[in-house]
Amino acid sequence: MATHKLLLLPGDGIGPEVMREVEKIVGWFRKRGVGFETETDLVGGSAYDAHKVSITDAAMARADAADAVLFGAVGGPKWDGVPYEVRPEAGLLRLRKELGLFANLRPAICYPALADASSLKREVVEGLDIVIVRELTGGVYFGEPKELVTLENGQQRAVDTQVYTTGEIERITRVAFDLAKKRRNKVSSSEKSNVMKTGVLWRQVVSRIHKAEFSDVALEHVLADNCAMQLVKNPKQFDVIVTDNLFGDILSDIAAMLTGSLGMLPSASLGAEDPQTGKRKALYEPVHGSAPDIAGRGLANPIAMIGSFGMALRYSFGLLDEADRLDKAIANVLAAGIRTKDIAGPGMNAVGTQDVGDAIVKEL
Amino acid sequence: MATHKLLLLPGDGIGPEVMREVEKIVGWFRKRGVGFETETDLVGGSAYDAHKVSITDAAMARADAADAVLFGAVGGPKWDGVPYEVRPEAGLLRLRKELGLFANLRPAICYPALADASSLKREVVEGLDIVIVRELTGGVYFGEPKELVTLENGQQRAVDTQVYTTGEIERITRVAFDLAKKRRNKVSSSEKSNVMKTGVLWRQVVSRIHKAEFSDVALEHVLADNCAMQLVKNPKQFDVIVTDNLFGDILSDIAAMLTGSLGMLPSASLGAEDPQTGKRKALYEPVHGSAPDIAGRGLANPIAMIGSFGMALRYSFGLLDEADRLDKAIANVLAAGIRTKDIAGPGMNAVGTQDVGDAIVKEL
Ligand SMILES: CC(C)[C@H](C(=O)O)[C@@H](O)C(=O)O
Ligand SMILES: CC(C)[C@H](C(=O)O)[C@@H](O)C(=O)O
Repeated sequence: MATHKLLLLPGDGIGPEVMREVEKIVGWFRKRGVGFETETDLVGGSAYDAHKVSITDAAMARADAADAVLFGAVGGPKWDGVPYEVRPEAGLLRLRKELGLFANLRPAICYPALADASSLKREVVEGLDIVIVRELTGGVYFGEPKELVTLENGQQRAVDTQVYTTGEIERITRVAFDLAKKRRNKVSSSEKSNVMKTGVLWRQVVSRIHKAEFSDVALEHVLADNCAMQLVKNPKQFDVIVTDNLFGDILSDIAAMLTGSLGMLPSASLGAEDPQTGKRKALYEPVHGSAPDIAGRGLANPIAMIGSFGMALRYSFGLLDEADRLDKAIANVLAAGIRTKDIAGPGMNAVGTQDVGDAIVKEL
Repeated sequence: MATHKLLLLPGDGIGPEVMREVEKIVGWFRKRGVGFETETDLVGGSAYDAHKVSITDAAMARADAADAVLFGAVGGPKWDGVPYEVRPEAGLLRLRKELGLFANLRPAICYPALADASSLKREVVEGLDIVIVRELTGGVYFGEPKELVTLENGQQRAVDTQVYTTGEIERITRVAFDLAKKRRNKVSSSEKSNVMKTGVLWRQVVSRIHKAEFSDVALEHVLADNCAMQLVKNPKQFDVIVTDNLFGDILSDIAAMLTGSLGMLPSASLGAEDPQTGKRKALYEPVHGSAPDIAGRGLANPIAMIGSFGMALRYSFGLLDEADRLDKAIANVLAAGIRTKDIAGPGMNAVGTQDVGDAIVKEL
């Protein structure tokens, strides 16, 4: 039997407590004969506290050797003062960059039972099911120069550089179109081509790939400011949105917030397929952050983290039946009203992080 | 009697038809003895059609000589194919840059009578009254290099550069704090200091100015992705949001869309005060765009454009009574149910662009 190597990086804040629930699920599958091997390591502020870096080279090597990385969350006010190079987020950025995880898939789904938790009107978001495909290893996140210098006149000057090449845009475009073909056949590409040269190139490349390889899929170009507006006005007009690293950061957070289900949304960050082995590097993480305000109190919703493991079952291990089974268990637990505070309806009794994990195991 | 020199730049799409309504208002004030002198010129696609540039040097000189510029809107699919350097938006960007209009004030107000037009729940937006203070002459909009080059391997490579210096951040920070002092005494500063060096500098400078000059105003730092989320979740937590050019573009569009009153929102772009004359260059424009889909059909809501003239009365000419009078006339017209289609309530008869302008003149 094949063994699937998982690296767990719980991170900071609520990361460890939601990861603990995933471990229960992994344990359940292991008992039923699915070969999982897990290792755990530090990332983010907790890595800094232990090693003065946001991720060690050893942890990077483990991530590189794993079949999939499960990532909790990083950051918190505790590390506000640490040097820029070793801030908690740097660990996540290094993982993305060095593992080549260029394709970040962020579904935004509004579960009908949770539609009332959205700040938007029920009819605007009910049944929403879109995916933001965010480029994750390029753009302003990694472009050079990226520096803060003191000028002769005593002023400081900060620079960030947004860079994209044809090839970087081509590969993320293909991910978006491939995905749209399995969904509702529509891609919306978002940039600021009216102001940015990277936007001009982005639009050109997306249009060319569309014409040459995916002309049966609908394509529209939406400026990023307008895309943000349209997400608020009428998000159901979208199916797949493909965009760059920085716009993707913002647009996917808007999309997630619309659903009222922030604590429910998983995400996948994928590398290129190895032509020899057919394998691809992958990291799975909840869309929500480290939520330091509720950390350690057993209040966090573990479903986004557990759902991220579900995505790993599906995309990294091809364990489709197992993934379906997990999804169904989650749905049943929700339907039974076993919910953490963030998604408990009016009059419902909220349960704790562990209760949700236990209930899902029981459902399995 | 002082004469106030206005340059009208109607631009493209619905720009000309909403500007026509402003001219009625200007005419009314002129008849009552307020000295307005108006000139009109081309900008955007209409300038390109006439002169193959998005704004002529002559028009720039007129803008420079005017006491205030009233700007309609630019752009539309007609000019999708024009060269990047002369695309419609370039005219607006040149005005902002060469007139030194570094401070863009974008109020987002949810009029109670229009709260139901929002896609957000009434209780989330009713009574919303926030201002986005957007830096307008720096950042990725103008930083160099900004280029699209073909590499030796045939790939293309696009670069945009986000640059900020201490001084640029200081002056916009002061605008935001000054404004907050006249409002609810709270500034939220938004950047991506966890990823961008410009964000690091931004946060440092804002914190320093706060401590040294405005310690009686509340300050919080909100990462831009989280700020977008919070705007959707609970926008009333904000008072004044200060942010850079690119984040301001997106965050202000989100804020505007929340209100359900996009066709109602004016904006002001201001330069530095001349230490000799006390005057500052200024451009006023509606937050909405050129809306090519409804252009020329008399459907556009002229209130954002008329309100922009109201801001000019207030900020450029110190005509506070006149500005109040205009605001009251607008409010009365709305209350009387005289509304264009975008804001007509269910069962209300929508009127045309001209009807609204005429009704406001009558109210005056
Ligand atoms: C933690 C941070 C560096 C990260 C980002 O900006 O990409 C986060 O906001 C995200 O969206 O995954
Ligand atoms: C037209 C465009 C160049 C402009 C911008 O991006 O600044 C617009 O979106 C705005 O917000 O005023």
